[in-house]
Amino acid sequence: MKINSNYHNINESYLFSTVARKIREDKEKHPDKEIIRLSIGDVTLPLPEIVVEALKKASQEMGNKETFKGYGDEQGYAFLRDKIAEYYKGKGVTVKPSEIFISDGAKSDLGNVLDIFSVDNTVLMSDIVYPVYLDTNVMAGRKIKFYEGNSENNFLPLPDDKVDADIIYICSPCNPTGAVYDKAGLKAWVDYANKKDAIILFDSAYEAFITDKNLPTSIFEIEGAKTCAIEICSLSKTAGFTGTRLGYTIVPDELVREGTKLNKLWLRRQTTKFNGVSYIIQKGAEAVFTEEGYKQTRENIKYYLGNAKVMMDVLDELGIWYIGGKNSPYIWLKCPEDMGSWEFFDYLLSYGVAGTPGVGFGEHGEGYLRLTAFGDRENVIKAMAKFKQAVIDLKK
Amino acid sequence: MKINSNYHNINESYLFSTVARKIREDKEKHPDKEIIRLSIGDVTLPLPEIVVEALKKASQEMGNKETFKGYGDEQGYAFLRDKIAEYYKGKGVTVKPSEIFISDGAKSDLGNVLDIFSVDNTVLMSDIVYPVYLDTNVMAGRKIKFYEGNSENNFLPLPDDKVDADIIYICSPCNPTGAVYDKAGLKAWVDYANKKDAIILFDSAYEAFITDKNLPTSIFEIEGAKTCAIEICSLSKTAGFTGTRLGYTIVPDELVREGTKLNKLWLRRQTTKFNGVSYIIQKGAEAVFTEEGYKQTRENIKYYLGNAKVMMDVLDELGIWYIGGKNSPYIWLKCPEDMGSWEFFDYLLSYGVAGTPGVGFGEHGEGYLRLTAFGDRENVIKAMAKFKQAVIDLKK
Repeated sequence: MKINSNYHNINESYLFSTVARKIREDKEKHPDKEIIRLSIGDVTLPLPEIVVEALKKASQEMGNKETFKGYGDEQGYAFLRDKIAEYYKGKGVTVKPSEIFISDGAKSDLGNVLDIFSVDNTVLMSDIVYPVYLDTNVMAGRKIKFYEGNSENNFLPLPDDKVDADIIYICSPCNPTGAVYDKAGLKAWVDYANKKDAIILFDSAYEAFITDKNLPTSIFEIEGAKTCAIEICSLSKTAGFTGTRLGYTIVPDELVREGTKLNKLWLRRQTTKFNGVSYIIQKGAEAVFTEEGYKQTRENIKYYLGNAKVMMDVLDELGIWYIGGKNSPYIWLKCPEDMGSWEFFDYLLSYGVAGTPGVGFGEHGEGYLRLTAFGDRENVIKAMAKFKQAVIDLKK
Repeated sequence: MKINSNYHNINESYLFSTVARKIREDKEKHPDKEIIRLSIGDVTLPLPEIVVEALKKASQEMGNKETFKGYGDEQGYAFLRDKIAEYYKGKGVTVKPSEIFISDGAKSDLGNVLDIFSVDNTVLMSDIVYPVYLDTNVMAGRKIKFYEGNSENNFLPLPDDKVDADIIYICSPCNPTGAVYDKAGLKAWVDYANKKDAIILFDSAYEAFITDKNLPTSIFEIEGAKTCAIEICSLSKTAGFTGTRLGYTIVPDELVREGTKLNKLWLRRQTTKFNGVSYIIQKGAEAVFTEEGYKQTRENIKYYLGNAKVMMDVLDELGIWYIGGKNSPYIWLKCPEDMGSWEFFDYLLSYGVAGTPGVGFGEHGEGYLRLTAFGDRENVIKAMAKFKQAVIDLKK
């Protein structure tokens, strides 16, 4: 009996545990000092009322013989897939309900979708990356190449025709940088993928934070994407579902490789290894896609973007380079005075503010820090006053 | 870009679609005829009240700032893992909460757990089988061997030392036969697995149907199991959660292969490719493991077993050979007069009763029919009267 030896090749990330340890140690040294965390990658506002009511109603339905639901469609209830198709219609994108697969979240799908691809494929991703892209492929033993995000390309690298790849990860708005591709940028990737016969796994988990009407919120807004892309999305950040759990993945019918529809392969994978998402949670998700649900969820996003505005105003005032924040809950800033990621993290912590060191997300993140816009407005205002003082003291 | 070519080797099962088509066609020919389905593999009673109340309360918590929950532990909330550990204590089995992993269901875990094993392993399973065991391994390209269930071994085959295997599937109470291993039977498998350095994947999804105190409801009741077995269970049949979705998998700390704890590997898999089960559903599951929850869920199981009793009484009266029904919602019966599975299915359907042809689950199921105890008592009584008449007419 042999274990999957690829598991030995995964690098353990100590980023968040080290951040937590440093905060704890500082707290022990200075018990009275307030530390405000601008490092939280999780929503903080409660679920909108319309969603809560839908969840409660569905829970009650499960308790009545007449309305009880047993096994549902592994792909998701039609009522929800229809609503998501309508939502895409609003973006000017035509997606059929049969192309939409409901899941328990983007993280599951991002990992599980690899099942339908050969392990002989070469994978291409940014070197500043959501670790799931990297670790899931290391686990399968795939060859991995990186493209470089840096301040020259605004952390939005474009494809290089000289590099070959089979599976390409793109996250826009990006976790952790907050950078968002425009249509021309995504078009370059789509053209590259179609030319190379590659597949783009497009992570659009933060699409609801895009307020700039000119920026694409789905890769399917780009011509040619349906023959090369799978889109993976989630209600985690759209509607505060990080603890409620629901995502969806779109596999277009036009996506064919080696004569096989990838939609059929993914359906086969899901019907074999998955039994669908709870009826209750799907009813809660359905409420998100109503007019009132849209209004209530966007109110929450507006609040987080208001937090980001507070941060950006201070960074602008201090003349600090950053991206993100406008169409993303993440702000990726250059550490002042050429400090290293951890060096600036420690310095800022001494003022009572915790960020996340950019180098923790990859080599080219060195010299950067990530701030997140989740949390209370009052705390964000307090934290940014401390941030400002810290940078002013540094320049003295 | 290459797809996973193993997907081409999966046999499509037409069992349930053929059953559905035949029922539909019969209905079209005889619109007034009532057809009662004793072929449903899904619960029909609503969730117990205590579970519904817990689901509603947790839904409301998600709507209040003070009690809102974002990301939870990927392995599951401690409140639920503690309760499951207590439940095992009641079986006389010591399981640590850190050995318990909460998931969205047994089907997901049965498929996903293969991720931690090399594709070079050889898999052993019954040839009358829950198709997920087979298909998930075909998808990965593993070599598969079968052991034979038949009426001589009461569909409870024992290991053969001459056969080598790395991964062994055991389902007890068995879907689809309803057969249940006794302690001696499971001990034989545990000893075999330990000798061969193999892993048993023990599917205990139907454990709550076991009423005979002498039969094991967990493989960990067997000495030596902790060094060779992973147990996969679910609330689907225990508490009617087929549409609510929650399961759990137990990976003992003692389970080590090639110097690596499988518990750590599975934790790594789950933290990378899974983000935990909805807080709301975990709170519903917690209620199942309270004293009142236990009482309410066992009432439902008693009802289903009462249905099975109605069926068994008729089969006994007719002198038809069968297994299951006593400690399982499934009854696996020998078709009368040496009829084939589909032949008897068609004959029974002409009397207005639908079962499931045994041959649909594997070669050695030919000549058998599966009946399920889910559904309304009144319908079961009616169906079995028709069944009786059909068999009497056959013998005329």
